[in-house]
Amino acid sequence: MSGNTFGKIFRVTTWGESHGLAIGAVVDGCPSNLKLSEKDIQKELDKRKPGLSIFSTLRKESDKAKILSGVFEGKTLGTPISVIIENKDVKSKDYEKIKNVFRPGHADYTYFIKYGFRDYRGGGRSSGRETIGRVIGGAIAKKILGKYKTSIKGRIIETGEKQKNDSFGGIIEIIVNNPPKGLGEPVFDKLDAELSKALFSIGAVKGVEIGSGFKSAKMKGSENNDEMYIKNGKIEFKSNNAGGILGGISTGQDIILRAAIKPTPSIPIPQKTVNEKGKNVEISVLGRHDTSIIPRILPVAQAMIAITLVDFILQNNAYNLKN
Amino acid sequence: MSGNTFGKIFRVTTWGESHGLAIGAVVDGCPSNLKLSEKDIQKELDKRKPGLSIFSTLRKESDKAKILSGVFEGKTLGTPISVIIENKDVKSKDYEKIKNVFRPGHADYTYFIKYGFRDYRGGGRSSGRETIGRVIGGAIAKKILGKYKTSIKGRIIETGEKQKNDSFGGIIEIIVNNPPKGLGEPVFDKLDAELSKALFSIGAVKGVEIGSGFKSAKMKGSENNDEMYIKNGKIEFKSNNAGGILGGISTGQDIILRAAIKPTPSIPIPQKTVNEKGKNVEISVLGRHDTSIIPRILPVAQAMIAITLVDFILQNNAYNLKN
Amino acid sequence: MSGNTFGKIFRVTTWGESHGLAIGAVVDGCPSNLKLSEKDIQKELDKRKPGLSIFSTLRKESDKAKILSGVFEGKTLGTPISVIIENKDVKSKDYEKIKNVFRPGHADYTYFIKYGFRDYRGGGRSSGRETIGRVIGGAIAKKILGKYKTSIKGRIIETGEKQKNDSFGGIIEIIVNNPPKGLGEPVFDKLDAELSKALFSIGAVKGVEIGSGFKSAKMKGSENNDEMYIKNGKIEFKSNNAGGILGGISTGQDIILRAAIKPTPSIPIPQKTVNEKGKNVEISVLGRHDTSIIPRILPVAQAMIAITLVDFILQNNAYNLKN
Amino acid sequence: MSGNTFGKIFRVTTWGESHGLAIGAVVDGCPSNLKLSEKDIQKELDKRKPGLSIFSTLRKESDKAKILSGVFEGKTLGTPISVIIENKDVKSKDYEKIKNVFRPGHADYTYFIKYGFRDYRGGGRSSGRETIGRVIGGAIAKKILGKYKTSIKGRIIETGEKQKNDSFGGIIEIIVNNPPKGLGEPVFDKLDAELSKALFSIGAVKGVEIGSGFKSAKMKGSENNDEMYIKNGKIEFKSNNAGGILGGISTGQDIILRAAIKPTPSIPIPQKTVNEKGKNVEISVLGRHDTSIIPRILPVAQAMIAITLVDFILQNNAYNLKN
Repeated sequence: MSGNTFGKIFRVTTWGESHGLAIGAVVDGCPSNLKLSEKDIQKELDKRKPGLSIFSTLRKESDKAKILSGVFEGKTLGTPISVIIENKDVKSKDYEKIKNVFRPGHADYTYFIKYGFRDYRGGGRSSGRETIGRVIGGAIAKKILGKYKTSIKGRIIETGEKQKNDSFGGIIEIIVNNPPKGLGEPVFDKLDAELSKALFSIGAVKGVEIGSGFKSAKMKGSENNDEMYIKNGKIEFKSNNAGGILGGISTGQDIILRAAIKPTPSIPIPQKTVNEKGKNVEISVLGRHDTSIIPRILPVAQAMIAITLVDFILQNNAYNLKN
Repeated sequence: MSGNTFGKIFRVTTWGESHGLAIGAVVDGCPSNLKLSEKDIQKELDKRKPGLSIFSTLRKESDKAKILSGVFEGKTLGTPISVIIENKDVKSKDYEKIKNVFRPGHADYTYFIKYGFRDYRGGGRSSGRETIGRVIGGAIAKKILGKYKTSIKGRIIETGEKQKNDSFGGIIEIIVNNPPKGLGEPVFDKLDAELSKALFSIGAVKGVEIGSGFKSAKMKGSENNDEMYIKNGKIEFKSNNAGGILGGISTGQDIILRAAIKPTPSIPIPQKTVNEKGKNVEISVLGRHDTSIIPRILPVAQAMIAITLVDFILQNNAYNLKN
Repeated sequence: MSGNTFGKIFRVTTWGESHGLAIGAVVDGCPSNLKLSEKDIQKELDKRKPGLSIFSTLRKESDKAKILSGVFEGKTLGTPISVIIENKDVKSKDYEKIKNVFRPGHADYTYFIKYGFRDYRGGGRSSGRETIGRVIGGAIAKKILGKYKTSIKGRIIETGEKQKNDSFGGIIEIIVNNPPKGLGEPVFDKLDAELSKALFSIGAVKGVEIGSGFKSAKMKGSENNDEMYIKNGKIEFKSNNAGGILGGISTGQDIILRAAIKPTPSIPIPQKTVNEKGKNVEISVLGRHDTSIIPRILPVAQAMIAITLVDFILQNNAYNLKN
Repeated sequence: MSGNTFGKIFRVTTWGESHGLAIGAVVDGCPSNLKLSEKDIQKELDKRKPGLSIFSTLRKESDKAKILSGVFEGKTLGTPISVIIENKDVKSKDYEKIKNVFRPGHADYTYFIKYGFRDYRGGGRSSGRETIGRVIGGAIAKKILGKYKTSIKGRIIETGEKQKNDSFGGIIEIIVNNPPKGLGEPVFDKLDAELSKALFSIGAVKGVEIGSGFKSAKMKGSENNDEMYIKNGKIEFKSNNAGGILGGISTGQDIILRAAIKPTPSIPIPQKTVNEKGKNVEISVLGRHDTSIIPRILPVAQAMIAITLVDFILQNNAYNLKN
């Protein structure tokens, strides 16, 4: 249902198909009086650009962000910030041949059964280009996190091995340094629950874990519990198996998340599949595709974490009543 | 923000503290004309009852569900269904001694920093008893899933080893048989994203994976892609690494999820921690606690999956326009 | 869709049918550390009690509120506040005779076509008793408004004339004294738009106006504009045709609203109508009904205004970033 | 809070300032497979164009709608529909002189106190140009209403008298012919409550009434109740004082709404006001303003009603379970 918006107060709506005229985002609920320029957004967009890694797609995505609203004289107005990027270097003809075929591992089949109709060009709405809107939202969110001296780091901690004509996946880790304490809204809107949703909303993610994660399943309570002590009058933890979150609320420790990324489904190796007419066919997905999506997912994952944290900061602020 | 409600159309709100007068749920957005009795709910509640496993708490929870509204002459009215369970066998005095202490691995500390004040008795709102409300919602959701011949199974696939005075965790697996096709709302409200949130909203969950999950990180595209073919005029898949979801939308295959459960934090082994006054203290968590929460988490996890699926079924129905 | 919840951050969910076991509300999103007792709620509930006016129903509603959760040692926990009231003095047999008849001016017909099934006893969910839940929410909201020294007054400014066996309506006016400035979220969630929704959500309301209201349609711009000036260093207005709201945002002036209340539809005078079987019938609505609902709507209207204002106060707080 | 989106399932988000680069809307939750072209939108936009009435602003608004996403090969994809209109004929210099002045009857003052900063050019976000986004949403909504053979008519039923250099208001009436039965979600999301919010969200609206409206306050129950009878096997009403809605749910009769429109606040007559520095000043609002906003509000009001109805149609569909 209208699933193109993320967040409750700080709300990021993305729109656009891979081969449509443009792609963009509307960020509503951003506080006013925040310095913001197209440069701030461009800097983040450039991180997800293809070609920064040898495994990336050959499509040139010289995405130039244009702010259309919500910013005046270099500062946010408190009104919706609309950012647009034109779709260029679009080669729709590449997709003519496979327009009726459901590529294995892609959303072609499910979009078809759900909507009865789809934009087959470059994955349409399910394309990785949709994540541009998320990076826009993340860029704005990071301006707010800066005020809290909160930063987000990401790294690839595991990748598969590459074989000719095939693709591989991997595991990324995101670490939030110095997050505000007290973020997260029990019961259902726990911070970890929303962060997990944020990461799983990225196309290729097949698993998410927090702190000791799946390892905790093999640990004893005495090993997994993070003991606390007082140091210089402050509460400290001896370990961080919790990954910075207890009872769905941030402790102030680093928030540590890992996500499993599946191998890119587009591969030249011939695969069996079916088409819209219900016929068995074989497909080799040629074209300008990433061998691995991991390097490009990292900035997107960080953007999603940033958006989620800011939304919870604003939610938390709501309860600060006048004394 | 008001995080005690789950779902967009089929909405489950839970309320209640562990040692308060009662605990319950309000289910709004349930279709009318559905047969529903207290028995339907009681049957599910009994599954999460302690004492069904040797590892469970000794607190007697003879929870009797009472339906207060939304049902008339054995059928749902389409109005909110309020279900209440009295809290009995409450031994609040057990908690007097540790009322100022932050138990390691528990939400004591984070509730304190977030709310400045907490009900220390039995974990208050962060108690496992809160999950009663979820099971109520799940019981109602399952009545709807029955109409679609969709069923949900759960099993423990891994547990830690038990040592004296300690606790252990494990991994559970949830399988949805015969889910409707086309569930899930791209982009952000992908079915897997919401299912992951649903599972992570359960206290002890530290990781969630779908289909090939973390294993996919080591797989090649040609291995992980699920090839499709036509059999008896129908589309079939050769494998199910996707876990039944492509592009955030259900394919109709079984939906397969696994969740890592951390060891119960309440253990008799003495642990270092701090209290509300900022002093170092040592704590042995005695009392009537589960050695492992896993057997009791299974029905809760199934309930959350049921609620999520039903919400997406209703969301999906919304778009069926008159022809 | 799940329309039994009001508010975005401060959220009031009401549940219960007129002749069910109980009726109640769950208030989620209430800040912690607020003094709250059953007395605070009871005081407000007593204002909507029948029998305080000569025109009121004869049903004895000795509604005693019981707080089941969310309050500990006299203070709010920040968790959902569940309040319940048992339904007593229920005479369901009175309704047996008319159970298949659609009473004119009532929701009988529309509930039937929408849900295919209804609790015919005392109006079921569409009964005035549902407003008990609103008054509960309002009582809690007023505790928060007290911190802002904001108060809400209501009065009847016009009533119809009473004729034997008939009923009458009227106009009420609600005045909010000393509202916080800056409340309301343009564009769609304007303060006046939400206040209007809040009032129209009360059964018998047929019109709402703000400030100069319908009179403004006959005024010139030079008459209707409220001129501003500086007095003792503060901005003052010469008039208040705006009713305290400009561009959907509160100015700090009194907020002035009026609502038209239709005559109670239950009258002993025989009326033509139809029944569930599609037959023409005649009905005299005897029983214990209010001749006019106006005196009992006043506290409900005030409660709705209080809930709306508090929700906007919390929304507004959200944007106060750390400096 | 993020108040720039209207609707729950069919969601219209508007963005843009009067004198920014562009203005637009994103419509999420529109069903797929609906024929839609820029012409459909342009036709509606042209209705709110200035210059169609002698009372309208002289600003040339040759607004050309461009669909950027969500439509492929002439049909909706089920993905967000982004529509953009460039802002042309912008004379920002006109506003330089009054940039620090709070125009009486405008949102200048309240935006300033809420956001601490504002785009003073042409009213910024509070400009009537924002309603372009609503008309876009309405144009799409009407395509869906067409499938239900539901149409919306609007007319001016009262206007003030015009005096030199002054402005006037009026009353508009909106009639929905052949609305689907059963729309509206009790308790809080009653159809009339949402329609009223929809109308009050339009800048100049000061009052809304439904059916007999404020007149009902003077009526007796026996006059105001709409008697029902069977005609050719169908239920008919003898009158329509309810305005097509009972208990918050549509009966299938025409839905009849009236809204009071205040006189345009921009007038050349000198008025007393204050500026951002807290000084008393006098202002004559010259420039290209509408003498009366009424003719241009009509299509906007119809658009808002269309959006609201479609959202409720989709909400209602959600509950149609498989049998």
